[in-house]
Amino acid sequence: MKFKLEKTDTQSAARSGQLHTAHGKVQTPVFMPVGTQASVKTASPEDLEQAGARIILGNTYHLYLRPGHRLIEESGGLQSFMSWPHPILTDSGGFQVFSLAELRKINDEGVRFQSHIDGSYHTFTPELVVDIQRSLGSDIMMVLDECAPFPCTHEYALKANERTVRWAERSITHFRATKPPLGKEQALFGIVQGSTYEDVRRQSMQQLLKMDFDGYAVGGLAVGEPKSAMMNITQLCGDLLPKHKPRYLMGVGKPEDIVHAISLGMDMFDCVIPTRNARNGTVFTWIGRLVLKNSQYEKDFQPIDASCPCYTCRTFSRAYLRHLFQAQEILGLRLATIHNITFYMQIVKNAREAIQKGIFEEWKNQFLNNYQMTEQV
Amino acid sequence: MKFKLEKTDTQSAARSGQLHTAHGKVQTPVFMPVGTQASVKTASPEDLEQAGARIILGNTYHLYLRPGHRLIEESGGLQSFMSWPHPILTDSGGFQVFSLAELRKINDEGVRFQSHIDGSYHTFTPELVVDIQRSLGSDIMMVLDECAPFPCTHEYALKANERTVRWAERSITHFRATKPPLGKEQALFGIVQGSTYEDVRRQSMQQLLKMDFDGYAVGGLAVGEPKSAMMNITQLCGDLLPKHKPRYLMGVGKPEDIVHAISLGMDMFDCVIPTRNARNGTVFTWIGRLVLKNSQYEKDFQPIDASCPCYTCRTFSRAYLRHLFQAQEILGLRLATIHNITFYMQIVKNAREAIQKGIFEEWKNQFLNNYQMTEQV
Repeated sequence: MKFKLEKTDTQSAARSGQLHTAHGKVQTPVFMPVGTQASVKTASPEDLEQAGARIILGNTYHLYLRPGHRLIEESGGLQSFMSWPHPILTDSGGFQVFSLAELRKINDEGVRFQSHIDGSYHTFTPELVVDIQRSLGSDIMMVLDECAPFPCTHEYALKANERTVRWAERSITHFRATKPPLGKEQALFGIVQGSTYEDVRRQSMQQLLKMDFDGYAVGGLAVGEPKSAMMNITQLCGDLLPKHKPRYLMGVGKPEDIVHAISLGMDMFDCVIPTRNARNGTVFTWIGRLVLKNSQYEKDFQPIDASCPCYTCRTFSRAYLRHLFQAQEILGLRLATIHNITFYMQIVKNAREAIQKGIFEEWKNQFLNNYQMTEQV
Repeated sequence: MKFKLEKTDTQSAARSGQLHTAHGKVQTPVFMPVGTQASVKTASPEDLEQAGARIILGNTYHLYLRPGHRLIEESGGLQSFMSWPHPILTDSGGFQVFSLAELRKINDEGVRFQSHIDGSYHTFTPELVVDIQRSLGSDIMMVLDECAPFPCTHEYALKANERTVRWAERSITHFRATKPPLGKEQALFGIVQGSTYEDVRRQSMQQLLKMDFDGYAVGGLAVGEPKSAMMNITQLCGDLLPKHKPRYLMGVGKPEDIVHAISLGMDMFDCVIPTRNARNGTVFTWIGRLVLKNSQYEKDFQPIDASCPCYTCRTFSRAYLRHLFQAQEILGLRLATIHNITFYMQIVKNAREAIQKGIFEEWKNQFLNNYQMTEQV
């Protein structure tokens, strides 16, 4: 995998670039829709392409448990299994083990847990997690890490990070000793941890940078900390991570947070917000969110956003979408998802274009002005 | 509305024809996917078009209760509301009042019932049901009828039919006295009732034919009667209904029943079987049904049917579809629906082509042979 840095903004740390993977090129900044179980919920690969998505995220924890990475390898890899021809990033499963699995026990070897599906016992080690992602054939794999909860003590953050660093070392050693079973080159990203403690984050980066990963993720944010702490740590990482490698801010997030984080030098984002909100009937527009079930849309025969190029906005009215949600018609979930993914892809596309034109700060301020004014109403 | 009879088979009563409606032409025999609440469950208008559907059915009972026919009229009619540019047939709501609503009371004036959604009280009269369908703007409207349950006594069937005939008279009088509020021509079909009693069916037809409806439906079948009784009544109606008018066999059904009914002279069909089965993970092929959840498909990387032109079969494997159902991913419901509607549309298309080539009986026997042999396994 190669990362080509194209342009860096002069008034902020915002950058535009290109990720070259075995399954094609991705322009950054980029948003990755979340395809937990080999499906971005309700959306087909065609829907995702039309919405402008060119890289999606798969969850190793879920895919390992069901249908199993061996089956996916046998089918030709995750791209082939789910018929998505473009790049895929898979997480390490660590976050889900800590948030979904039951009775987990962590020690230096790895983490033992019970499946949330059938209660069966499993152990993830840094090496196994690399092997699973090798079987999935993801273009970008993530190392197993220990994601500290918020809040946690300085001591806890330090210990969790020390383990994360030892695991990162084992991960890259195993990665370098193994080959992609499906024949297509795969990359491995390290994950910066350290909670909201700057010194732990610095220590984490210092040690990970020595290992020379293909890219670096900022983990352990968007887990309940104040927004100021999230942005403070993001800024620190934006400053200290190497310029010529991609930076991935994990699990963030809201449109305004993504735009802020782009200005702090982040390149890649993933979050369930656009897809989960869609399924609850909340859709995004340039002037804020819109709750489709609200009675004010009962006879509103305009599209969600007349300027939006998505299938939903080209075809259906708010009144019809509201009806689908009121009547619990499944079609509504997909139509709202198509719109929200399109909206997120447009945010990063517009940010990229503004960076390339040298007008990012202007664009950012205008976006935040329009978007947040209405959010506060 | 005009019906152009193109060809009648020499060895059976099968016919091919064309329905000309205000929203375009429909080739018969035809299958109409069911779009109960202004949505063929899980499928977008694009999906339906690609599956080959050119006319769909809407349920007056559901649309009247939610979102309400006035709102749909305000949006420009059901086609405009749901963004389906092709013809729509709406039922009268009678069947749903008898199967879904609570505390219904029927008398000569009409039927009073409680909404299954919120318990509110409503009364359907033959005139109101025409008015509602006028507001919906459906190309083909149905008269309010009393659908007798199976089994019922001869006396019950006779009385229910007599009321149905009186209501038909009131319906067509009201239809002729009113204009389409949306400016597009609408047609009205009468409904033959009489349960499994031939004499009552004959009487029903005799009286309805005098009223000169635009087409005739055969109602009150596929409600639990033996297959022989269903086919016996269908044959009687195929023999006695006028040749130059379209015949619609309501609520039928299974692929083999549709093919039989085509050979008995029926032109139009609707049923929830393809869509409801799809959502349960059962898909149709030329050699019988296939239950996607079965473990035999776990590592089956073939499509449902390699000869099928649908998006699902061109794109996804049985193993992937099985995974979607196992993991309760919503995408699976849509992909199976797309396949099943495509399959049903292909049945009627192939039947039509066989009729036009004069080889319908041959085609029918081959279809039933392939299809039913596996069904019995």
